[in-house]
Amino acid sequence: MEYSIAKALPILEKTPALLTFWLQGLDDEWISNNEGEEAWSPYDVVGHLIHGERTDWMARIKKTLSDHDKEYVPFDRFAQFEESKGKTLDQLLAEFTIARKQNLEELTSLNISEQDLFKTAIHPSFGIVTLRQLLSTWVAHDLSHIGQIARVMAKQYKEEVGPWSEYLTIMHR
Amino acid sequence: MEYSIAKALPILEKTPALLTFWLQGLDDEWISNNEGEEAWSPYDVVGHLIHGERTDWMARIKKTLSDHDKEYVPFDRFAQFEESKGKTLDQLLAEFTIARKQNLEELTSLNISEQDLFKTAIHPSFGIVTLRQLLSTWVAHDLSHIGQIARVMAKQYKEEVGPWSEYLTIMHR
Repeated sequence: MEYSIAKALPILEKTPALLTFWLQGLDDEWISNNEGEEAWSPYDVVGHLIHGERTDWMARIKKTLSDHDKEYVPFDRFAQFEESKGKTLDQLLAEFTIARKQNLEELTSLNISEQDLFKTAIHPSFGIVTLRQLLSTWVAHDLSHIGQIARVMAKQYKEEVGPWSEYLTIMHR
Repeated sequence: MEYSIAKALPILEKTPALLTFWLQGLDDEWISNNEGEEAWSPYDVVGHLIHGERTDWMARIKKTLSDHDKEYVPFDRFAQFEESKGKTLDQLLAEFTIARKQNLEELTSLNISEQDLFKTAIHPSFGIVTLRQLLSTWVAHDLSHIGQIARVMAKQYKEEVGPWSEYLTIMHR
């Protein structure tokens, strides 16, 4: 599938309401449990998504569109453990919803053209990347974390499903 | 996490509206593409969920609760390829919504007790299984297919994300 803003935007627009509908009101065990050790809970994932909205996606998009200051700031994958402290899941979902909405408004206002998608910037690990790759990654990143939340929740029943664990490949990922 | 009807029911209740909100209105490429070869598209997954509602979960639950006819009928994992033919995604989502709602009403009317969760039946491959395992599996099965849809959609951008593919483990699952 080829990247296009028109086909990609609805995915980004839907994620906050999807997560809010899905997670709100669930028993806290679903929200706070993880896959073990240092893995993330659904609560941690929402915090991570907020940090991305605030510091990463739009900053990188604007750098890529600009003609100077082309180097991306490394993304802090653990910032949510500090930033989410003391907040309820509902607070985080509301913050994510607002931050995403503002970012998509700003994205739309940039009127990115087909030509702009070829613009480049410097990623701290990968070197030269294109705006098209960055924008595609924003979408895939949302989907990846929705998939992660589904997996983390499914795994809470790894023991409870008994022999069916064999058929549920998600339990072993 | 231990299985409890009270904690599990909200997951089952939310799946139809979650999938409807998420998938409705997306470009058909998101809905009809799969991971390659015989893999399922999001459209196929919704058909599979309908077939489970109509033929599998409640039939098995009632068999497990009853005192005779304890053998489960094998589940047809490919029924959706015939049954979904000619239907739009919106039709399938509406069918799934109605079928799930009716099943959860029936489930609630059964007034399943803690003691009932120990009742058993015969699975065609696993042999003796408990109601508790079956009910847990219903929940994990929903979550597994939500995770699958996220993965199938993310993989549509496997090429487009360029070097970021390395960080997106979902691309390689």
